[in-house]
Amino acid sequence: MPAKALTIAPGRLIKTIHETAQFGAKFAWGSASTETGVCRLALSDEDKKVKDWFYEETKKLGCEIKIDEVGNMFAIYPGKNTGPPTCMGSHLDTQPTGGRYDGILGVLSGLEVLRTFKDNGFTPNYPVGVINWMNEEGARFPQSLMASSVWAGLQTKEEIYKMESVTDSKPVTVKHELERIGYLGDIPANYEANPIAAHFELHIEQGPILEEQKKEIGIVVGVQAYVWYNVIVKGKAQHTGTTPLNSRADALLTASQMVVKANEIAHKNSGLCSVGILNLEPAVANVIPNKVSFTLDARHETDQGLATIINELKEEFELIAEKGNGSKTSKPLKVEFEHIYTSPAVHFNEKCIQCVEESSNALFGEENCIKMISGAGHDSCSTSARVPTGFIFIPSKDGVSHNPEEYSTPEQCENGFKTLLNAVIKYDEL
Amino acid sequence: MPAKALTIAPGRLIKTIHETAQFGAKFAWGSASTETGVCRLALSDEDKKVKDWFYEETKKLGCEIKIDEVGNMFAIYPGKNTGPPTCMGSHLDTQPTGGRYDGILGVLSGLEVLRTFKDNGFTPNYPVGVINWMNEEGARFPQSLMASSVWAGLQTKEEIYKMESVTDSKPVTVKHELERIGYLGDIPANYEANPIAAHFELHIEQGPILEEQKKEIGIVVGVQAYVWYNVIVKGKAQHTGTTPLNSRADALLTASQMVVKANEIAHKNSGLCSVGILNLEPAVANVIPNKVSFTLDARHETDQGLATIINELKEEFELIAEKGNGSKTSKPLKVEFEHIYTSPAVHFNEKCIQCVEESSNALFGEENCIKMISGAGHDSCSTSARVPTGFIFIPSKDGVSHNPEEYSTPEQCENGFKTLLNAVIKYDEL
Ligand SMILES: NC(=O)NCCC(=O)O
Ligand SMILES: NC(=O)NCCC(=O)O
Repeated sequence: MPAKALTIAPGRLIKTIHETAQFGAKFAWGSASTETGVCRLALSDEDKKVKDWFYEETKKLGCEIKIDEVGNMFAIYPGKNTGPPTCMGSHLDTQPTGGRYDGILGVLSGLEVLRTFKDNGFTPNYPVGVINWMNEEGARFPQSLMASSVWAGLQTKEEIYKMESVTDSKPVTVKHELERIGYLGDIPANYEANPIAAHFELHIEQGPILEEQKKEIGIVVGVQAYVWYNVIVKGKAQHTGTTPLNSRADALLTASQMVVKANEIAHKNSGLCSVGILNLEPAVANVIPNKVSFTLDARHETDQGLATIINELKEEFELIAEKGNGSKTSKPLKVEFEHIYTSPAVHFNEKCIQCVEESSNALFGEENCIKMISGAGHDSCSTSARVPTGFIFIPSKDGVSHNPEEYSTPEQCENGFKTLLNAVIKYDEL
Repeated sequence: MPAKALTIAPGRLIKTIHETAQFGAKFAWGSASTETGVCRLALSDEDKKVKDWFYEETKKLGCEIKIDEVGNMFAIYPGKNTGPPTCMGSHLDTQPTGGRYDGILGVLSGLEVLRTFKDNGFTPNYPVGVINWMNEEGARFPQSLMASSVWAGLQTKEEIYKMESVTDSKPVTVKHELERIGYLGDIPANYEANPIAAHFELHIEQGPILEEQKKEIGIVVGVQAYVWYNVIVKGKAQHTGTTPLNSRADALLTASQMVVKANEIAHKNSGLCSVGILNLEPAVANVIPNKVSFTLDARHETDQGLATIINELKEEFELIAEKGNGSKTSKPLKVEFEHIYTSPAVHFNEKCIQCVEESSNALFGEENCIKMISGAGHDSCSTSARVPTGFIFIPSKDGVSHNPEEYSTPEQCENGFKTLLNAVIKYDEL
C-alpha cells in the first residue's frame, strides 16, 4: 500500500497534545484552557503519569513495550517481518518553564503514526517503534540527552545513576527517582543489546529561522556542537561595609565580568555562550561572596569553532580571575572548570535526510522546505552516533521555546506529523 | 571608689568568648579548638542556647533581666540610685560564615564589666546594664540592626514580625521564630517605655585601619551611611541553543553588567557598592534567565554622598536595562528597585566620645588611639537616634570579618574591655 493512500484523522494529534498537557499544565499565558505551559521534570510524579499514559495507549495499539535500565520506553508496532524497528523518538519530559510542544510533538506524532497504521490496517515491512527518551532536557538532572546517550554507549548507566537533581530542595539521584516512579526497567540500555534500524525525530524548531523565511518544514541536516561546563570562582568572604574596594576578592564581581566576557567571545566567534544557573555563597546582603559557581553553555556550528570559543573562554576567565577586582592592590581569585558534557557537531544520515526531503517536498513543495541545522541538541544526536537518523523541524512562533508561551499552530503540527509518517514509510520501503 | 582601683580578672573575658563559641562553632581554619568560626543565625536553635546562657549568667550576678517583644535582652545590674541604666550593648547573633568576635565581644565585655563590679563589690551610682540586641546581622532575616531599630522607634514591630528568613529552605517569619524559641517577651520594644540612659558599644573594627596604623583603640565618632535595595531585572526565558544573541533578553547578562557598573560607581564616588545575594529563574543550564533579583548594599561617609551614588545607580541601571543585551535588535529589559533599609550617617554623642577618649588615652596613651568612623552599621546607630551613645573599636587581623578567620588577640580584646569599663564608670560618675 503506497504511503499517500493512508487516511489520517485530522485534528487528533493536536487533541492528544492538549490532553496530555494535563500532566503538568502550568503558567497560563492566555484565557483558553490550552494556553498554558507544561512543567514535567524528568522522573517527577507528572512524568510518571505521562509515562503510564503512553504505556497504556501504545499497548492498546498492540505494541510490545520495552522499558530499559535508564527509563527509556520503546513501544514496538509489529511489521510483516521481524528485525530491528524503524523508530520515531523524542521526549515527554519538559523544562520547568516548558511549553506544550518541545519533545512532546515528536513522541505524540510517533504515536499518531502508529494509530494511523492501525486505523488503516496497514502493516509495515518491518516493525516500527516510538521511543520516549528519558531526561532529554537536562533540567532536573543537569545533563541533556541523558538516557539516549547511555543507550548510544556515549556514557555508562552508572555515570548517570548517581547524578543529583538541581531543582529539588533536597537533591535526589537519577537511580533513586527511576526506582521511586517504577521506571527502572530490565532491558539493557544499549544500542547493541536493544537495537533499532533507524531514528526519525520531529521537533519544533525552537528558533526563528523557519518563521522568518516563511517555510513549513525544516529538513534538518545536522546539529551544532555544544558543551556544558560548571565554572567555579573562589574569592574571599569579607564585610561589605568595612572592606575597601581595593582589598576585596569579590567572587560575584569577578563572575559577573566573566558572564559579560563570555557574551563578547560568543559574538566575536559567531557562536553562543549562555549562563543559565548561578549560585553563590554565603548569600548574605552584607558579605562579599567568597564562592560563585555557574553553568556555561557554549555552542558553535563546527567542532573547531567550539574549540576556539572554549580556549578563549578559559584564557580570558583566567586573566579576569588573576587580575582580581580591578585594582593593583586587589587579590587574585581562583577559577576552575568542571566539564559536564560535550555534544559534538552532528551530520545526519544521507538516506534519512532524503526520506524527509522527498516526503516534505511532495507534501508542501520544495519552495516551502529548507535544509538547515539545529541549534539545540536532541536525542537524535545520540542515535546518530549508532544508526541512520533523520530529523524534521516545524516553525516555532517568535522562535520562543523553554517558555510556557512556546507555540506552533495545529496545522504546523499536522504538517510535521505527515512529513514524519511518509518519511518513515519511505524508509521502511527501502 | 575610682575606676582604676577595680581589680580585673585577666584572661576571663577571652575564656568566656571561647566558651560561648560552643553555641554554633563551625568552619575550622586552624588546628586549635578555638580556631573556628561561629554560625549562630538570629533566632536559630544555637541563638536560643546562647540567649539562655546569657540569661543564667546575668541572673547569677543579681541582674534583673527584661526580654522585650522583639527578643532584645536587657540585663540590669542595680546602682545606688534607681533610674534608667547606662547600658553596654551589642549582639550575640552571627553571620553564616561568622567569626568569634563580631558583636559577641561587645556583649561579653559588658558581662565582664558587671562581673568585675561584682568581684570588687562595686556599686555604680545608677544601674548599669548589658543588652543583647536581636538580629543585628541581617543575615537570616535580611535587615541589619533589626530589633534595635524597633526599640528606637525607627520601625514598628509589626514590620519586622512578618519578615521572612532567606537562609532556610522553607522561609519562616521573625514572629514565628521568636515564639518557637521562647523569646517573644512582654516588655514593650520602645525607648520610651523601656528607657536607657546611654549606650556604649565595644566592637572589632572589621576593617584594616587600626592594624595598618598600629593603633590599639579606635575612638569611633560616627558611622557611614548605608542603604540596602533589592534590584529585580526582568528579561525573557528562551532556549540557549536556538536563540541568536541579538534577539535575547538575558536577565543575567544584564544583571552582570549592573554588578560591574555598581563597582565602577562606588570607585568614582569614594563609596562602596556590593552585591551579596543573587537569585535567578528558572535556573536551568539551557534556559536564558528571565528574572534575576539581587541585593545592593551601597555606603558612603555622608548622606549626601550616598544620595549621589543611589541616583547614579538608578540612572545607569535603567540605561543598561533599556539598552538590552547590547545590540540594536535585542529587546529592552525591565529593572525595579525595592528599598529595604536606610541607615543614615551617624555622629555619636560628644560626652560619650569624651568618656571613651579619656578612658583609652589614659590606658594606652593618646598616640595609640585614633578617632575614626565605622564602615559597618551597629546597634549603636539605632540607640544614637534616642540616647547618648559612644563606641569603641579594637583592631581586626587583616581587616577580616564576616568570615570564620576573623581574629583579634586576647590582649586586644582585653584592651577594649578595659576601655569600655572605664568609659562606663566615667559616664556613671557624670
Ligand atoms: N531541544 C532541546 O531543548 N534540547 C536540550 C538540549 C540542548 O540544550 O540543546
Ligand atoms: N557590624 C556589622 O556587621 N553590622 C551589620 C550591619 C552592616 O552591614 O553594616
